[in-house]
Amino acid sequence: MSLTIRDPDYETRVRRAFDGQRYMHFIGASLISVTPGGCEIRLPYRPELSQHDGFFHGGVIGAIADNACGFASYTVAAADQSILTVEYKLNIISPGIGAALVARGRIVKPGRRLVIAQADVHALREGREKLVATSLSTLMLLDPGERGERA
Amino acid sequence: MSLTIRDPDYETRVRRAFDGQRYMHFIGASLISVTPGGCEIRLPYRPELSQHDGFFHGGVIGAIADNACGFASYTVAAADQSILTVEYKLNIISPGIGAALVARGRIVKPGRRLVIAQADVHALREGREKLVATSLSTLMLLDPGERGERA
Amino acid sequence: MSLTIRDPDYETRVRRAFDGQRYMHFIGASLISVTPGGCEIRLPYRPELSQHDGFFHGGVIGAIADNACGFASYTVAAADQSILTVEYKLNIISPGIGAALVARGRIVKPGRRLVIAQADVHALREGREKLVATSLSTLMLLDPGERGERA
Amino acid sequence: MSLTIRDPDYETRVRRAFDGQRYMHFIGASLISVTPGGCEIRLPYRPELSQHDGFFHGGVIGAIADNACGFASYTVAAADQSILTVEYKLNIISPGIGAALVARGRIVKPGRRLVIAQADVHALREGREKLVATSLSTLMLLDPGERGERA
Repeated sequence: MSLTIRDPDYETRVRRAFDGQRYMHFIGASLISVTPGGCEIRLPYRPELSQHDGFFHGGVIGAIADNACGFASYTVAAADQSILTVEYKLNIISPGIGAALVARGRIVKPGRRLVIAQADVHALREGREKLVATSLSTLMLLDPGERGERA
Repeated sequence: MSLTIRDPDYETRVRRAFDGQRYMHFIGASLISVTPGGCEIRLPYRPELSQHDGFFHGGVIGAIADNACGFASYTVAAADQSILTVEYKLNIISPGIGAALVARGRIVKPGRRLVIAQADVHALREGREKLVATSLSTLMLLDPGERGERA
Repeated sequence: MSLTIRDPDYETRVRRAFDGQRYMHFIGASLISVTPGGCEIRLPYRPELSQHDGFFHGGVIGAIADNACGFASYTVAAADQSILTVEYKLNIISPGIGAALVARGRIVKPGRRLVIAQADVHALREGREKLVATSLSTLMLLDPGERGERA
Repeated sequence: MSLTIRDPDYETRVRRAFDGQRYMHFIGASLISVTPGGCEIRLPYRPELSQHDGFFHGGVIGAIADNACGFASYTVAAADQSILTVEYKLNIISPGIGAALVARGRIVKPGRRLVIAQADVHALREGREKLVATSLSTLMLLDPGERGERA
């Protein structure tokens, strides 16, 4: 797979987009790194993010997996394009137990219009990473003025 | 499809499980109704739940879709069983713009071990509902003492 | 949901496309009906379509579920558009045991560019239908001259 | 990820299961290799496997992706266990144009009960491989006597 980075200043653009998401601030997620076709998001544990057992809620795991795919895909957008999640599928593999979650997204196939991306979410537990979930996503690049309606 | 309700007091059990999820409180979601094989979750808009355009974040949409499937499926559990999301797939159909989201989950196929469920998420906009997302999920019923590791 | 049928002769177009698929002939599938936003495909049992237990193979179940979504979605295409499957997710719910499979596809959300569709696959067993699988698909309408590369 | 191979004679068992699938013979697929947690399936092109453009049909691509995950997962089964596909999601990335398809499946997470697997399908075109599709699957190991009803 060869990636074309259309916007040399992609990292600034991706970081600005991440910072513009109030929900990421709300749950306390940080964008750790951005690379061509990839990114890493970290989310420290807080009790407010838990399900009934006190572990990370599946919806939180899905949110950072979705976002990791989104921001990884956004690195190949042109400077004036935006990006939308069309759909994602998430397999939750083990309970979200740990001091933090780390989601790493990467592009599987970049395209003119659609981008296929994949993310793995690990829990940090006593200094080790444990795979918690894996996802597969379809995203769509939008030109300026295109409507946000996917369909 | 015929549903067997093993625990006549299923509504109390489902509502208690919902109340035990700190994350649902954190985002402000309420369990509106519980029926055999179905449930409805409502989430009023707050700016903290938004992405860069100020609309509901996709991760929030996914979280309540996942939970709507989970609690719908939990209605057929025995009194001492718990339930886990194995995986879900979410199609985001239109932007999450509105005063609230309403997620309705229903069982597609109940089983001894696995439950297949489906949810639709609508946005309430000026008194009308607009379809925002649809999901398809696989959940697993766990007997007491079974480990939370899905795989 | 309101459907706009852009090509009044959609049924002829859809049936011609179905007939043009050699693979559908190969496995013995028939397009039973086409309606605005929907279609029904029937596949009689043959031992060549089986897995190790002699039941319909999961790949065959997936193929007609995918096609049922594809042809349902194709009913809303303009006369000169073609359609591609972007992705699909299939839950296999019970073994494919029966004299035939019947797949019914329907549009969940039609769009200018992307169409979300859903299919249920039933097995005909002793005069009754049993749900075998359910799917959720994303399809893309292509204008003349657009490339078949989805991404 | 550590894989436990419970049946030292797993390759014989997997190859026998593949040979028992009439549908794989019908389309002309071969099991090229089996390794702990992985396998490779090859399917030469035949016009009978095509859609309207003469390319490999999406249903055929899905069938060998599903099977690649299934046989990869079956390598970790005990000698008396069988395996079922619970669900799979397939992204079709580019048209299935080529002399053959090659599907490679691998286990993402093995489990006592559920196995998560992933497959990539490539087309062989003029001596090079091109990624055509990628999938993510959930499978279930069944003990002797367990019913084939997933749910």
